[in-house]
Amino acid sequence: MKRLVLGVQYDGSCWHGWQTQPNGKTVQDELERALSAFAKLKVSTACAGRTDAGVHAIEQVVHFDTPLDRPMHSWLNGVNAFLPPSIVIRWIREVEFVDPDAQDNFHARFSAYARTYHYVVYCNPIRSPMWSKRAGWVFRPLDLERMRLATRYLVGENDFSSFRAASCQAKSPVKHMYDIQIRQKGELFVFTLRANAFLHHMVRNILGALIFVGTGKKEPEWIEHVLHSRDRSLAAPTFMPDGLYLAKIEYDEKWQLPGLLGQSLPGFLSDFD
Amino acid sequence: MKRLVLGVQYDGSCWHGWQTQPNGKTVQDELERALSAFAKLKVSTACAGRTDAGVHAIEQVVHFDTPLDRPMHSWLNGVNAFLPPSIVIRWIREVEFVDPDAQDNFHARFSAYARTYHYVVYCNPIRSPMWSKRAGWVFRPLDLERMRLATRYLVGENDFSSFRAASCQAKSPVKHMYDIQIRQKGELFVFTLRANAFLHHMVRNILGALIFVGTGKKEPEWIEHVLHSRDRSLAAPTFMPDGLYLAKIEYDEKWQLPGLLGQSLPGFLSDFD
Repeated sequence: MKRLVLGVQYDGSCWHGWQTQPNGKTVQDELERALSAFAKLKVSTACAGRTDAGVHAIEQVVHFDTPLDRPMHSWLNGVNAFLPPSIVIRWIREVEFVDPDAQDNFHARFSAYARTYHYVVYCNPIRSPMWSKRAGWVFRPLDLERMRLATRYLVGENDFSSFRAASCQAKSPVKHMYDIQIRQKGELFVFTLRANAFLHHMVRNILGALIFVGTGKKEPEWIEHVLHSRDRSLAAPTFMPDGLYLAKIEYDEKWQLPGLLGQSLPGFLSDFD
Repeated sequence: MKRLVLGVQYDGSCWHGWQTQPNGKTVQDELERALSAFAKLKVSTACAGRTDAGVHAIEQVVHFDTPLDRPMHSWLNGVNAFLPPSIVIRWIREVEFVDPDAQDNFHARFSAYARTYHYVVYCNPIRSPMWSKRAGWVFRPLDLERMRLATRYLVGENDFSSFRAASCQAKSPVKHMYDIQIRQKGELFVFTLRANAFLHHMVRNILGALIFVGTGKKEPEWIEHVLHSRDRSLAAPTFMPDGLYLAKIEYDEKWQLPGLLGQSLPGFLSDFD
């Protein structure tokens, strides 16, 4: 048995999220269908971060086990030929794998020590077809400095219950937010959040709150109050999924995974690098 | 009667081109439906450049006549509310209009003296879901300098029969190409073509030929041979519509149209400005 690891990129706008569903139309269903078609064997996958409907991935990391012995480039080209235009495998790598039940095997989800998401906002009085399904839309002006002040309260190890969906299955609401950056270029804002892990809807709920601060509806200090209340009902509504991109998953170097070096931003945002 | 002029932006990937068709699903059908719904009167439009299926517009210019007297911001917000996410009106302006039959009235198509198109190419061995329907894809490396050499043969007043679709209805195959620029940033190439007018499929046919030169399949001088042959069968196949953007239409200053200043590139390519 071999354990193979994939870097998967997708436009989530036409899929009902990552996780397999009885009625299909998910990225996992499409990917497992393509892997199984190539391998002529049923393939089951595990991913690093289960994205919601409409959420994109610059680099989702996925692993699966297979008895099949094929060169990596055959897997890459073969499986991509079975995938639709909105999903692609960017790289594939074999990891050492002695015993399926061993604790120290590579696991796309459990071996990851950090995740990075980008949220792209298009800020203009008129919506843009060029950004439809690719960015959140805010029609009121956004104040970059106010939002940057607000992010300071969120960085560090915190109980993020105020930004957690009711449906969240995480064992603990305490996560370590390593960094939040906001960059602006004209009418575009890119929010970058890096944490050890995220609760369900956490990025979109934080975005909703930051937009409240950016438009002047709330003061930056309000974020601190919301965070400490641990009460979801005090925060802002969940922001639309359109502008959310799972960008990077980090693992110990011993796994020697390639990653999309220098490509952690969507290709069309290269000027933010 | 008033003559109103619109700056219209659309993502063409879900539409069967600009021009109205009996079975609908065109940008013109959607726009006229929305204008008519707002005006509660049948509205007919004329555009500057009829784009094909799958081709986008950063700024298409459209005009129509109406007896209705409403403030411009009411038109803008009212009609946009009737349009789908993939189409939007960015600006609206009234132009002087004395007599419908006068020769010197503003006309979106006949008053235009220049058109600019961008073609975006994503160049990588592996296709990208982020660029699906938004850029042409070339999996072989492209040589920027070879392509730039090739463009020199196309600039000026030329008979572009070799790059003209059989279906083209233009009176003459002679057009004046003012300028062709190619810019590269990493794996992205943006081709910008400015001419007094374009024949049907002309940009996509020129792109096909430039890609042949860029990948080394043909020498730069081959373009000159193809152009002078005035024989469509000697050129390269028509390149895919995915990366084509109608970017800018130019009119005499007397019409005082706003244009999307500084936004002639798709928003996600602002670093090419």
